[in-house]
Amino acid sequence: MTQRPPSPIGVFDSGLGGLTVAKALAERLPHEQLVYLGDTARVPYGTRSPATVVRYARNNVAFLRKQGVKLVVVACNTVSAHGLAGLTDGGDLPIVGVIRPGARAALAASSGGTLAVLGTPGTIRSGAYEQAVHELDPEREVVSIACPLFVPLVEEGWTQHAVTTAVAREYLEPLRGSRVDTLILGCTHYPLLRETITAVATELLGREIAIVDSASAVASDVAALLEKLGLTAPSFDATGEETRPPAHRFCVTDAPDRVGEVALQFFGRSIGAFEHVDVLPSPA
Amino acid sequence: MTQRPPSPIGVFDSGLGGLTVAKALAERLPHEQLVYLGDTARVPYGTRSPATVVRYARNNVAFLRKQGVKLVVVACNTVSAHGLAGLTDGGDLPIVGVIRPGARAALAASSGGTLAVLGTPGTIRSGAYEQAVHELDPEREVVSIACPLFVPLVEEGWTQHAVTTAVAREYLEPLRGSRVDTLILGCTHYPLLRETITAVATELLGREIAIVDSASAVASDVAALLEKLGLTAPSFDATGEETRPPAHRFCVTDAPDRVGEVALQFFGRSIGAFEHVDVLPSPA
Repeated sequence: MTQRPPSPIGVFDSGLGGLTVAKALAERLPHEQLVYLGDTARVPYGTRSPATVVRYARNNVAFLRKQGVKLVVVACNTVSAHGLAGLTDGGDLPIVGVIRPGARAALAASSGGTLAVLGTPGTIRSGAYEQAVHELDPEREVVSIACPLFVPLVEEGWTQHAVTTAVAREYLEPLRGSRVDTLILGCTHYPLLRETITAVATELLGREIAIVDSASAVASDVAALLEKLGLTAPSFDATGEETRPPAHRFCVTDAPDRVGEVALQFFGRSIGAFEHVDVLPSPA
Repeated sequence: MTQRPPSPIGVFDSGLGGLTVAKALAERLPHEQLVYLGDTARVPYGTRSPATVVRYARNNVAFLRKQGVKLVVVACNTVSAHGLAGLTDGGDLPIVGVIRPGARAALAASSGGTLAVLGTPGTIRSGAYEQAVHELDPEREVVSIACPLFVPLVEEGWTQHAVTTAVAREYLEPLRGSRVDTLILGCTHYPLLRETITAVATELLGREIAIVDSASAVASDVAALLEKLGLTAPSFDATGEETRPPAHRFCVTDAPDRVGEVALQFFGRSIGAFEHVDVLPSPA
């Protein structure tokens, strides 16, 4: 008897940065197939108006639903910051963003000190991380720091570079003499700067600090939610062999030329081929 | 007798960087009205596929045509690099890009040495400046340097900053010991870095160098073309009074919130209000 393969997990981001979240998911849930969607034709979302961002996100969710996914991970801080309600068109598709898992993981890692959130200007302006922290701990002090140059620096490949260290020193200056004990990397690109950020934060604070990235936090939350919903793919098949999920699918909305190298950087291993897809609703 | 006011000049860019070109036009042609269009809902173009860029550009030209413009300036290096043929739908609307005027101005400023072009990765990859130079002087040596961090640095407001100087030193390193005598600022954002770029280039070459920005070169070309076509707005009215053109119009395709400050930086003076416009062809 051939069993229908379990449904995949859908992941989308405005671009390729969300591959850091896909990477964390693939590591945490090795028996699950992923369908990744990078909306590269409309990246970046951070500078768009809220109405535009929500419209784009709904297109992406609808596309992933058509691929038969059992759960959608919004690996995009901008979309997550605008709220996930309404993205699934009233359906019952479970949806997980990056903000709440990040906030929860930061509170778990902290010893009661101030939390610092690093993010793009859009994410910081939204106040979404602060809000998510305060829903869990209304008294907790949160410092928010916009770091607009971090994404371009990662995309330039300068993850270990004197210029990046100088930029980090300028952005993280508010840490000096503060009570910050935990730092949230509130952007999917920032895990690639973890080493530089850790070094600069330690230097400015004169002590070690917990660094939480949303990607790992999301992966843990997705594992727990699948378990709770009884949707986890089986680890072993009927013959007792460990299951191997079908190959992950990687989709982009603009031409898939030249994405391979960037993708390798974010996903940590080479991705065979990107599918070029259209997420716009077809005219009726 | 009331005369119909002369038609405006249309200018478009993917975002607000093209306002440096609008600024040069307003200074060079004070009697002309401008209609500026920043396609902020779809910025940036540099990372899009050629087919997508051309489709967007055609939408923009069609929008400007509907505003009754007499000439279109493509203040966007990415679009100019893909070629302007076909953007006007076979109509006779004159169209001026930024590449050829920049190349011509650089050859005029040079004393026969090598030309260096600074641009975004997309512009550099296109080879459009090299090609435009070689159409005029096939033997001229051209060095092309992609400077991906310059746009984010300008947008961060770090036009005079130690980090920007450090980045410029790294990008301009190929100038050291070279025969470069003229540098083309091949991106609408770069005029704001003119001082830093000049200082670093002088330091690396040990001598002064001519710096050409496309914005001024375009303004001169547009002035000459209007003159040739007999489309120049009159400087004086029938009573001998100096004419004052109607107020310039500034349009953007995404919500016009928060564009004012950036616009001030590029245009050099405050812009009253941006109109929010839709450039997509209406469904028939």
